[in-house]
This record gives sequence, structure tokens and C-alpha cells, in this order.
Amino acid sequence: MAPYVPGEQPRPGQELIKLNTNENPYPPSPKVRRAILAEATASLRLYPAPNADAFIDAAARAYRVRREMIIAGNGSDELLSMLFRAIVGVGDKVAYPQPTYSLYDTLAAIAEASVARIPLEPDYRLPLDCLADERARLTIVCSPNSPCGAVASHDALAALARALSDHLLVVDEAYVDFAESNALDLVRTCDNVIVLRTLSKSFSLAGMRLGLAFANPAIIQQLRKVKDSYNLNRLAIVAGAAALADLPWMRRNVERVRRTRALTERRLRALGFEVPPSQANFVLARLAGYDLAPLAAALRRRGILVRHFPKSIFRDALRVSIGRPSEMRALFDALAALLPSFHRNAERISGAPAPTSAG
Amino acid sequence: MAPYVPGEQPRPGQELIKLNTNENPYPPSPKVRRAILAEATASLRLYPAPNADAFIDAAARAYRVRREMIIAGNGSDELLSMLFRAIVGVGDKVAYPQPTYSLYDTLAAIAEASVARIPLEPDYRLPLDCLADERARLTIVCSPNSPCGAVASHDALAALARALSDHLLVVDEAYVDFAESNALDLVRTCDNVIVLRTLSKSFSLAGMRLGLAFANPAIIQQLRKVKDSYNLNRLAIVAGAAALADLPWMRRNVERVRRTRALTERRLRALGFEVPPSQANFVLARLAGYDLAPLAAALRRRGILVRHFPKSIFRDALRVSIGRPSEMRALFDALAALLPSFHRNAERISGAPAPTSAG
Repeated sequence: MAPYVPGEQPRPGQELIKLNTNENPYPPSPKVRRAILAEATASLRLYPAPNADAFIDAAARAYRVRREMIIAGNGSDELLSMLFRAIVGVGDKVAYPQPTYSLYDTLAAIAEASVARIPLEPDYRLPLDCLADERARLTIVCSPNSPCGAVASHDALAALARALSDHLLVVDEAYVDFAESNALDLVRTCDNVIVLRTLSKSFSLAGMRLGLAFANPAIIQQLRKVKDSYNLNRLAIVAGAAALADLPWMRRNVERVRRTRALTERRLRALGFEVPPSQANFVLARLAGYDLAPLAAALRRRGILVRHFPKSIFRDALRVSIGRPSEMRALFDALAALLPSFHRNAERISGAPAPTSAG
Repeated sequence: MAPYVPGEQPRPGQELIKLNTNENPYPPSPKVRRAILAEATASLRLYPAPNADAFIDAAARAYRVRREMIIAGNGSDELLSMLFRAIVGVGDKVAYPQPTYSLYDTLAAIAEASVARIPLEPDYRLPLDCLADERARLTIVCSPNSPCGAVASHDALAALARALSDHLLVVDEAYVDFAESNALDLVRTCDNVIVLRTLSKSFSLAGMRLGLAFANPAIIQQLRKVKDSYNLNRLAIVAGAAALADLPWMRRNVERVRRTRALTERRLRALGFEVPPSQANFVLARLAGYDLAPLAAALRRRGILVRHFPKSIFRDALRVSIGRPSEMRALFDALAALLPSFHRNAERISGAPAPTSAG
């Protein structure tokens, strides 16, 4: 079984432009630091609140969802792990698009689940109709999806939830604050929908490991049974509460990222890449049919980290997180310098499909 | 399936004497706060080191164990959960003493394991010979054990590890810094031994969720496969590293707790309790044959929290964490006031065994 392989993390002191793990280029709200300083006292000797009450209270206020419908995770990764442990038995079917967040594969392998991996539509759209046909015990839709940034519409997700009836649908909305729509309100009307959120991206808190799951209270109860007793530490709880109490800070940074994303799409297309329109804080940049591993390595040598997925059908693409404008300019300049030589030496992937229309 | 039920956590602002969840009454090293302040910056926007490198490095130095033999957990609870997920399949046998840390029951139920619960010896000793006979896929010995504080000797654990040969032995040493011996060096000589430590008790960091597992590199690799990608947040990593770099601070607090423990044993015995000698930061106080739920409730009304296990064979006992001397004096005074009335009204548990010799 292959463990999930996260993107490279620079060692302390390494000066790199980090566009590989979809972190936010802007810092978290100053209220987060103040909350941490106030909590980092002798009280660290005491266990945290088992259900992260202050964080859940803040989430209930920020999202207007009842407390009983929310559970906190040590990152949404932990919530995904809890979902598999609570719901998926050996041999149970799990369904999700392919490609998507590769952690689902790791968790399915640990659970010894049978997996239906449904290819994306040709224009990168999420294959919701085919997912409905699978009627899996657990269906997962990452929306916006990684690595291409396509979002499933609210209506399409509602229809999928209805079609799955008593089977569970997880909508992993890790990137949804960068999108134009979200599906959170489905948890109020569909008993089989679980929406996941994280503070890692839009709230600039990847380092604090803060995730939230929203669902009907019966599902939340099931998840509590497999939750570690104290899964969030004291500082994570207050940091999460402070971040959710400062939504304007998050929204301002999201706006900056969206502006830079639009610029990035234009510039990468001008450099010859196929770039599907993204609603996330990253874009996929394809040179269809060419393995871009050498290009990623060449960028790495120039101090720029982007994500290349060597085993994916998108090995002919790079996933580029949206950084600060100056970081993106460094990327565009590096690509402009590297591409002529790349094109001289590149060979087409044998048996590669024809380039896809980016819609 | 019953979830693990942690001890009561007071709400913010509640003034209680908290002797119910084995926290350290003394604060963590000031170096911990300094490390947190230095890390709670814009860098929180970045993911933490997936393998908590700085914490592992500090553990390697503090315990003189190679890095490849150490993995960090979000508390040792998470390490226990990972062990079950990595090692225990449906129907596999797991063996541990009874009573012990009740989380093992919860994890075994989630894993749908078959469980051999081996009763303690009459003098509270850990039943290592009977555990060896079970030859379970996973054997767990909490040493010192909760709730009675008995420790398994190094030689006895070494013999158990040998007897289990290729089956795994977990020695959960959550409380071992308060004891006179430990079994950590067994990981160097026995390929089937996993030793768990936590910074929750002796290092006064229950609020930070910091656990460590030590074992041969092949087992550590197996655990990495089921580990969440980023299971410790940035502040936990630096807090753990700072705490392990200040062992004298920990040892001074341990010495204070041990002195108060000796006093507590004497005083509780003088009040009529049977108190097995403890090597942990808690003691068990028994009135053999009498359900102590009413006594725990009466203490609660006086603002003193102790732990009562209503479903345990030790429901005729209270587990009392060792607090500051002033907190213990408040407990002794409250018990002295409450016991006469308790004895007038108490009825023996029907079918209760005769009082056990406390050795």
C-alpha cells in the first residue's frame, strides 16, 4: 500500500518559491496570533476541550449551522480518515472522480475498500452522473477538484445527493472559498450529505491543522465515536475560533488570490499551456501529451516548487498554487526561459491521448 | 459501540480542583512558551513538517534512540489508534489487562477485534504470564497501569516480549516518568516491542497533544503508512521539541509529584482507604465492596473532581490524580468531612468480592 505523499516542504532556511501545496501566500489574521499568545500559558498542562467547543461555536456563528451538525478535525485529512473508519468496511464500495485528491486512494487502501474511480469528463468537469450510477457506500466529490480546479454546481450536487438517497455523499470543499458557489446548505436539506471545510487554504492556517465537517447530527454522532478523545490541541482550538471570527481578513486574501489566479491563467495560456478555468487557489497548466517531469525539475533547480503528479493522467501538466504576484512573475519568467529548450528536447508520451478541449 | 469517555473538563471560568484526568499540577517549561511565540507568525500559513522533524530530533537526543525508530503522534491516543489501524484486522485477537486504559476497548471495538481481557493479579500486579499465553496479534501493557499505578518490571516485560516472539507487544508508558523503571531500551533488543510515551503527564503538556512511539524501523514505517499526512501542527512540533530540551524542568516537577504522592498514599490510608502503591501520578483509593459513586458526587459538589469508573470492578474506588499539596489537603479535608455520613448510608455492592490485599 502506498502512503499518501504530500508535496515537498522546504527545510528551515531554504529560500524557495513554494507553489506546490496550495498554501495561502498571505498570513493569517493577526487575531490568530493574539489568541495563541493568550492561550500559551500554564493552561497547556490541561487537556483541551474534547469537542473543541470554542472552535465549534465560532463555526456555528460563521456558517449559521447548528453546533450539533459540526465536528472539528485535526485538518480535514483527519475528518476524511474518520469518515472511512466510521463508514467504510472491508470490501465496501467507495466512488470518486479520477484524478482527485490522492489521499482518498490511501484511505480506501487502508480500509480495504473496493474503489470506483470515475474519469473526469473530457472538459475536466466532475463526472457526477456516473458517480450516481455507482451507488457506492461512500461517494466523494472534491469541489473545486484538485488538480484542475473545476467546481460542481450546487444544483448538480443536490441532484447527486438525491440520486444516492441513503448512500453518503462527501463534498470536500477544501478550496471552495476561492469559488463562486458552495454546497454547504445541502447539509440542512439532505441527510446523506457531509460537507468538509478546512482553514488551511483560505484562512492561511495550513500549519495549524483545522478542519470542519458539517452533516446531520446522526452522522456527526457516528464520527464522534471514532474521533480521538482530544483531537485538537488548545492552541489549534483558539486559533480556529479567532480565524473564523475574522471573515473579512480571509475574504480580502481570497480576493487577492483570485485576481492573481486570473492573471496566472492568462499568462500561462500565453506561454502555450492549456489551462482549464480554475475556481481554486491553484491552476493546472498542461502541455498535453508531454511529460512535464523535466520541466518541474528545471523549475526546482531555479528555486520554484510546483506540483507534478508522475503517475497521473495529468503527468503532462503542472499544478501551480497561486502565490503573491511577485512569485508568479518569477514563475512566468522561469517558464519563458525554460520552455524553448523543453520543447526542443521533449518527446510525446507514447500512447498519449489527443489534447483535451479546455472548455 | 461505546465511545471512549474522557474525564470531565471544567468549562472556562469554573473554579474546580481537578484531580480526575492525571494532568500535571505544575506548568510546562517556560521554553515551551518561548518556542510557541517564535513560531506563531506568518509561517502558520505553511504546512508543518509531515514527520514533525524538530520534535523527532529532540526525542532522538533526549532518549538516545535513532530517528528511524521514532514516530510522533497527536497525543499517544493517536499512536494507539494508528497501531490498531495498521496491525489489527477484523477478528484479530488483542490482549490486555483488565482494568486498564479504557481507550483500548474503544479501539478494539472500532477494529472489530476479538479481545482477551486478562484480570489483574489479586495484589493489583499486571498479569503478564497470562498475557503471554494468549499469543494475541497485539498485546498491550499500560505500565504503570491505570487506574491502580502498578508497574511491570523491566525483566518481566522483556520475558513477555520474548514469549510473544513475532507477535507485537505495546508498552504504554504514559506514566513512566513517575516510576522507578521503564522499558524503553527493549525497543533496541526486541523487534516486536513498541514503547509509547506522552508529554501530557510528566511534561505538563496535555493541552498540546504530543505522543511518541519507539520501535524498530520496520514498525515505524508501517505506522507512517496510516498516519495523517500532517498529524502535528506547527506549534505542537516546536512545543514538543522545547519541552524535551528541558528535561531538568520535567524532572523537578516529577519529584514534587512523587513527594505529594507519598503523602497522599499515607493520608488516604489513614482515612481508611486501601491504596495500592502507585508509581504513577495518581493513586487508587478503595473502600472494597462499596460503590463510591455517591462519594465522587459529593466531592464534585464541593468542587473537587476525582475519577470514578462506574462500570469497573473498581467502582469501589476513586482514582485521584496527584495535584499540588494545597489541592490534596482540600481533598483530605473534604473526605474527612464526608466519610462518616458515607459510611452510615453505604451499602455493600451485592456479590462484591472480599477486600483485596494491597500488597
